[in-house]
Amino acid sequence: MTGRVTIVGLGPGDPRWLTPAASAALADATDIIGYSPYVDRVPERPGQHRHGSDNRVELDRSRHALELAAGGARVAVVSGGDPGVFAMAAALFEALENGDPDWRKLDIHVEPGITAMLAAAARVGAPLGGDFCAMSLSDNLKPWEVVEKRLRSAIEADFAVALYNPISSARPWQLGAALKIVSGIRSADTPIILARAVGRTDERITILPLGDVDASMADMSTMVIIGASTTRLIDRPEDQTPYVYTPRFYGVRQ
Amino acid sequence: MTGRVTIVGLGPGDPRWLTPAASAALADATDIIGYSPYVDRVPERPGQHRHGSDNRVELDRSRHALELAAGGARVAVVSGGDPGVFAMAAALFEALENGDPDWRKLDIHVEPGITAMLAAAARVGAPLGGDFCAMSLSDNLKPWEVVEKRLRSAIEADFAVALYNPISSARPWQLGAALKIVSGIRSADTPIILARAVGRTDERITILPLGDVDASMADMSTMVIIGASTTRLIDRPEDQTPYVYTPRFYGVRQ
Repeated sequence: MTGRVTIVGLGPGDPRWLTPAASAALADATDIIGYSPYVDRVPERPGQHRHGSDNRVELDRSRHALELAAGGARVAVVSGGDPGVFAMAAALFEALENGDPDWRKLDIHVEPGITAMLAAAARVGAPLGGDFCAMSLSDNLKPWEVVEKRLRSAIEADFAVALYNPISSARPWQLGAALKIVSGIRSADTPIILARAVGRTDERITILPLGDVDASMADMSTMVIIGASTTRLIDRPEDQTPYVYTPRFYGVRQ
Repeated sequence: MTGRVTIVGLGPGDPRWLTPAASAALADATDIIGYSPYVDRVPERPGQHRHGSDNRVELDRSRHALELAAGGARVAVVSGGDPGVFAMAAALFEALENGDPDWRKLDIHVEPGITAMLAAAARVGAPLGGDFCAMSLSDNLKPWEVVEKRLRSAIEADFAVALYNPISSARPWQLGAALKIVSGIRSADTPIILARAVGRTDERITILPLGDVDASMADMSTMVIIGASTTRLIDRPEDQTPYVYTPRFYGVRQ
């Protein structure tokens, strides 16, 4: 088989965060496959086929990509952020594992990207400057009890935590339940970052103490970062937004 | 004050992973500051001042950057990977918090990059496709007891775990101790990824079951990724390296 699948990370939205390697993979592809808003972010090229699809059809999309590649196509499966972080790469490998054994002969490659938590953290300072965890709050693919257990463990061990997929119309209560768990362990002045649509024209960043955060402040485009107990604000003059960072040291100052 | 500090993520080594935004920040700088091997990765420009320094002088380097910016310079502080993940951003903000109050008037900006765990994960498949934690194994800046507690919590809650700074000549035993903790909880066939110098000419990727991993297989350029209980291999024909991925579902298959 001569076909190929590259799962390409587009980053969080600003084209200046698209890596040259990702650009090259997009330019080289005969077929672009992905959730339509991501496909729309790829510059059109003559002769290139574009296959936009709905959200939540990740496995169908993956099988489609593998079938096209098995027929000789060079397929780019596009993903927001980094494909390996709550995005298309795991779905593609799931389709591969459970699909036509011949697909395993294909050349499959993941092209990394800037994932949302890194872009959100960069906007405010360095809140992920110490140990941290990344979790999806979605219970579509794992029981809520697992989400709760992981979140509680991460907060009790004093990791900063980045929450992907915090809320949606189909999952309206999960973020509130998560904030309640956090509030039972972390102090009410813990910095929380709500970073909406980072790198897009409608970007909006909010920094609030945990005690003032309400789940209604987030939507499905929001990345929520929960500070560790050591995460701090640096005030700035003239009402400028403070910086937020987590010091490298913990318990011992060098 | 008109000066500016941009903390720039250079990514893991391959220039094709340097974002256009990071390239632009480097081109615009009057001064490049950083650990010498990172400064050496920046293309030279006429008139631009380059200040390479040794490892482990992050605070001195940060103060130097802030002083230059206070004098009107446009400073790029270069960092491997992403500046916000076990790199220069937290040190810069620490220097800012504890330094000259006038520095808070400066324009300080973090330019994100591809951090090593994303590049390492991409090379093998999607091992970070579920919930995961990122930890530094260094006990230079936090007590070893904190490292142990966090690692144990993360493994018990069944996160995949990416270990930064796993080992060095000054910290020879920590990775062995960490692997022992993991082995007491995860099964011996858990996939472990040892990704050395990803994106550089001397890149070497090893995938082994936990029971066969020894701390001597890693060095200070190695990223260690510990699979979750659900992390799986996909075998491939003709002795090709298997793919490694963590399925999106957990406990429930859709």
